[in-house]
Amino acid sequence: MNIVLLSGGSGKRLWPLSNDIRSKQFIKIFKKEDGSFESMVQRVYHQIKKVDKDADITIATSKTQVSAIHNQLGNEVGVSIEPCRRDTFPAIALSTAYLVDVKGISPDESVVVCPVDPYVEDDYFEALKALSDQADKGEANLVLMGIEPTYPSEKYGYVVPATKDSVSLVSAFKEKPTVDAAKEYISQGALWNGGVFAYKLRYVLDRAHELIDFKDYQDLYDKYETLTKISFDYAVVEKEEKIQVMRFNGQWKDIGTWNTLTEAMEDNVIGKGVLNDTCKGVHIVNEMDVPVLAMGLTDVVISASPEGILVSDKEQSSYIKPYVDSFVQQIMFAEKSWGNFKVIDVETGSMTIKVTLNAGHSMNYHSHNHRDEVWVVISGTGKTILDGKEQKVSKGDVITMKAGCKHTVIADSELKLIEVQIGEGISVQDKIKHEL
Amino acid sequence: MNIVLLSGGSGKRLWPLSNDIRSKQFIKIFKKEDGSFESMVQRVYHQIKKVDKDADITIATSKTQVSAIHNQLGNEVGVSIEPCRRDTFPAIALSTAYLVDVKGISPDESVVVCPVDPYVEDDYFEALKALSDQADKGEANLVLMGIEPTYPSEKYGYVVPATKDSVSLVSAFKEKPTVDAAKEYISQGALWNGGVFAYKLRYVLDRAHELIDFKDYQDLYDKYETLTKISFDYAVVEKEEKIQVMRFNGQWKDIGTWNTLTEAMEDNVIGKGVLNDTCKGVHIVNEMDVPVLAMGLTDVVISASPEGILVSDKEQSSYIKPYVDSFVQQIMFAEKSWGNFKVIDVETGSMTIKVTLNAGHSMNYHSHNHRDEVWVVISGTGKTILDGKEQKVSKGDVITMKAGCKHTVIADSELKLIEVQIGEGISVQDKIKHEL
Repeated sequence: MNIVLLSGGSGKRLWPLSNDIRSKQFIKIFKKEDGSFESMVQRVYHQIKKVDKDADITIATSKTQVSAIHNQLGNEVGVSIEPCRRDTFPAIALSTAYLVDVKGISPDESVVVCPVDPYVEDDYFEALKALSDQADKGEANLVLMGIEPTYPSEKYGYVVPATKDSVSLVSAFKEKPTVDAAKEYISQGALWNGGVFAYKLRYVLDRAHELIDFKDYQDLYDKYETLTKISFDYAVVEKEEKIQVMRFNGQWKDIGTWNTLTEAMEDNVIGKGVLNDTCKGVHIVNEMDVPVLAMGLTDVVISASPEGILVSDKEQSSYIKPYVDSFVQQIMFAEKSWGNFKVIDVETGSMTIKVTLNAGHSMNYHSHNHRDEVWVVISGTGKTILDGKEQKVSKGDVITMKAGCKHTVIADSELKLIEVQIGEGISVQDKIKHEL
Repeated sequence: MNIVLLSGGSGKRLWPLSNDIRSKQFIKIFKKEDGSFESMVQRVYHQIKKVDKDADITIATSKTQVSAIHNQLGNEVGVSIEPCRRDTFPAIALSTAYLVDVKGISPDESVVVCPVDPYVEDDYFEALKALSDQADKGEANLVLMGIEPTYPSEKYGYVVPATKDSVSLVSAFKEKPTVDAAKEYISQGALWNGGVFAYKLRYVLDRAHELIDFKDYQDLYDKYETLTKISFDYAVVEKEEKIQVMRFNGQWKDIGTWNTLTEAMEDNVIGKGVLNDTCKGVHIVNEMDVPVLAMGLTDVVISASPEGILVSDKEQSSYIKPYVDSFVQQIMFAEKSWGNFKVIDVETGSMTIKVTLNAGHSMNYHSHNHRDEVWVVISGTGKTILDGKEQKVSKGDVITMKAGCKHTVIADSELKLIEVQIGEGISVQDKIKHEL
């Protein structure tokens, strides 16, 4: 099966674990059999490979997430990079063109487009495969997944199937309804719209060419910024008459808030944390090195990261966004394709960062105009290049770089260093990349 | 008036703000008129000086607190240092000898001994002065403060006065009672024992010589470790017949738990923090640089420091101690007489610290056997001495010290530096002090 996973934008609803460059799908929160934790994107990726080891997986996402994707899934996975955010129709059109023009997949093949963050079991991916097979048959132009509703939710769109068969033509769509309307829809046999589309690649390419003037993938990529923001539902689904829906009645959860996310946690505490025996329904997700102690709380989620600390009643946690929007804060940590960094001290005129480079990786060769930097290697081995000069480095070595000095470090083994930045107006914008 | 403030031990009940070297009395939590915050010890010191600007103030405390006391009160304040903890009788005896032998105060003068951490208004210190004046009269050997009880507390000892006069002889003492017994005592006119003693210096010196074989202050100090732990109540008060009690009916609070401490806070939030409008009775005390967001909580205290994060129902917060005792953790920050330090990163084989030196101050001249160190000056000016060699330093300078190298830094202006320690088995014990 060909599958495109739509990896969405910044997930402030799971602050402080998500931030402008780490979306919720990258938070390592799901316990694996070996006791370690994996993220939503890792979980979904491994589930797909388990169900279909030959699945061709492409992640459709923005530039800002590419480092995190390669860091978590390795460099093998296909990534269709959106140069900027333009809603789901341009994103799906771009990734469809990517599959045909970059990956060389035949336009007669089918693809399943699916959000990257459903919390589901393996049967969900079996269903995606069935969806792909159904699209192959060509009975309809689009095949959707219809989730059997478990309660009259106001959060989802509804799909009304023409028959009660496992696969049926769609007779109507209903937008997010009131609870009463939802009850009515469900009594009439309506299903939740799972946000999954299966289609033959040629179908969406044709729709895209009708709506956008472009030659091929590269051309679409180059003019992406000029495209109008429009959803796939609005641009394609609503105008299409030949749509089928396939029923799915397995476990399906949309993990968008702390409330729903904690329901999917196996343990109550991830990271250093203690709950006293008067706590009920309390979850701790702690990415800091120091302990969290919770006493006498009920239905509360506590999360701590280098970005901040959330303590919220679980119900209330869905109203987090405006508060987080009001925090003006620099990025305090990030995963990069080469490793990660963490800000450990901020002062006026200086900033101190811990940088971890994965074995075999290096940072960009770059310089700064307005700051000096000092590196102290605290573990590992590698080499630095300063203004073209190579030098081996290991634990305890100190490297000083004046403003303007071009520099990089290449890790032989995993290499950690403390970087002290000194200057006025330290900014992530003050970074000039150079060719080596 | 002469006054000795008893500054007690490690206050784990206010974790994570208090730790083994920062007791609760040093937490800056009380809002001043200028909007900044002061600690309990600063608040009490300034209140005494306001009521009696000539008051001779001595803090009786342990070695570990001396740096914090000088950091918060300056170097003028007298400090009677207990070489180790031996309960209140040896502590009061030692500070009494200190007043006579070190400060040269006549043994015929009176002194008031008082805990350092009552949360009170200025009238309390007027009352201490009256207590001192009463002791001067010599009508009794000890004068106590009796607090008019406001409820039948089980937490306090009770003093039964012989008469209803403002000053009266004591007819009986009652240990911490049950609520029912407390009601009975109060109906009989009993007062809370405020833990304050006024006496002529000679009186306690005589009692001390009866119980301990010592010549003078220095001798008592030298043999302090050999003394038996015994409380002043048990060693002196219970055996004395001529005791007066003076009534006090002003505000008096004992701030020993998060619950009582938050009652004394003027603002609900100290440090970076946001309460949403569904929070009720929530207090945040945040010493971290990142925000705390609290949503939908009731009667909860949240406190964050480099040591950890507490989230507790206020009632439950008094049961904190065993949990904190179970945390095995190094000291993450400390105030010193010369400034302060904060651990900003810990790895196997390395530790990174931010050191702030106050202007004109220096750290001890010292060396380490098992670690190398690197300093990066991030602000201020001063000089370093490395193996006897002086060198001026300022922002951006990098100083490297191999294990064994004797080193110190002396600040001209306030000087901040990042110290990276590298070695196996980094430990605070690995520090050898040297003469300059």
